[in-house]
Formats: sequence, C-alpha cells, structure tokens
Amino acid sequence: MPSIFTRIINGEIPCHKIAENDKYFAFLDIMPLAPGHVLVVPKVEVDYIFEMEEDDLAGILPFARNIAIAMGKAIPCERIGISVIGLEVPHAHVHLLPLRTMDDINFSRPKLKMSQEELASIAEKIRSYL
Amino acid sequence: MPSIFTRIINGEIPCHKIAENDKYFAFLDIMPLAPGHVLVVPKVEVDYIFEMEEDDLAGILPFARNIAIAMGKAIPCERIGISVIGLEVPHAHVHLLPLRTMDDINFSRPKLKMSQEELASIAEKIRSYL
Repeated sequence: MPSIFTRIINGEIPCHKIAENDKYFAFLDIMPLAPGHVLVVPKVEVDYIFEMEEDDLAGILPFARNIAIAMGKAIPCERIGISVIGLEVPHAHVHLLPLRTMDDINFSRPKLKMSQEELASIAEKIRSYL
Repeated sequence: MPSIFTRIINGEIPCHKIAENDKYFAFLDIMPLAPGHVLVVPKVEVDYIFEMEEDDLAGILPFARNIAIAMGKAIPCERIGISVIGLEVPHAHVHLLPLRTMDDINFSRPKLKMSQEELASIAEKIRSYL
C-alpha cells in the first residue's frame, strides 16, 4: 500500500505544496512544531533515509537548501534546522524547521493547531521567495 | 579564530574519532543525548549548513550513511536519526543519534554524563563495524 506521502505526491491527498522536482517533493507539515514547518520527501518510497539510492541521498540537502533559504526570508527565525527521525511514517522525510531556540526542534512538544487558511498563507509566502 | 571543531579536526583538542575523509570528520559528542551520539562536520569551516559549497553539502549524508550503518550495528536502537540545529557552535555539524523513541532526539533533555573510558569503548565498537 502506498505511504501517506506517496498519496500526497500523487495528489490523492491535498497538501500545501512548496516545491517539487523529478526526485523530491516538499510541502507543509499539517501538524507543525512551528509555523512554516516543511517536509521534504523523496518521490521513490523508501522507509529509512539511509536506504536511499546514493544519488537520491546526495541530492536531498541541495534540494532542501533552496526551500530553507526561502523559509528564512518568509518566517522570522535564526536559521532553518533539519531533523530526520522516521519512527512514524515509513517513507523517509526531512523536517525543515524555522528555529529561534533549541526547543523549536523538540518533537516531544505539543504540535501547533493551524487552520487551512493559515497554512495556505504560510505556504504562499514561502513559495513567493523561491 | 578557528572553531572548536576545527581544533578537534586539527588534533589540537582530543576526541573519540569515528572516521574521516578529505572533506568530513566524525567523532563522538562528549555531551551525548544517547550513547553513541556522533557529530559529522565538514572540514571547511562554515557556520550554517545551507551555506556549504554544493558538492560538500551533497556529500555529507552519503558520508554519514556509512557511519550510521555502523552505529546501527554497534548500538541497540530502532534506527539512526539526523539533526542539524546550529544555534551553538558556529561550525556546521550533523548530529547522528541512535533512536528508540522520539525523545532520544530531544535536545532540551539533560545530556548524559559519560566517562572517557565509556566514550572510548563506544567509539571503538562503532569503528569495528566500519
């Protein structure tokens, strides 16, 4: 069965898309730790990031860089943090998180509740800097 | 002034080294969140990971992969997580963390206190799987 991220990439589940190319897809996490929390996923469905093909693994941070730069312009923060955990959805994904303090990347914290309108507005703002 | 990580790479400050090549250096974090917590740093001193040269940025996860595979064999865990925060030492560094639960990658938690002997033993065990 395709992962929830594959279904998002295929357009079967709606998302607030940020960017894509032939290999990767980026969209807003709908349960963000901070406003502007983005997920970057490889289009090829692989559970564990370190099981990705060499070229796909090598390309994911350069792809994420463009998004991180746009996020840094769109969202007030010190810089963009990176986290890969992978204990939940079995489709590798890189979290990009606007950081002000160390606690902004603490996944044990309660997630934010944001409306679809708020998410759409943040996604549009990030895309405007791409 | 060179960063603390440049001084470690240059051998001016001792460390529990895991691996290096011409571009990257990996060693144990001496204030680990979990036993076997490794830092991977580019030898070129850059503060923010997204300011790294394209080739250096692309190579860091493939370099980290070999270490993560060895860590997964040396340390009982579900998988190896990745985190890049960068609010403290101004020299880009990738945290590789053995994960059992989401809280194993929570940087707001108190750090472990481990003796030099314990760190040396873990480093040797990880290196034995490289």
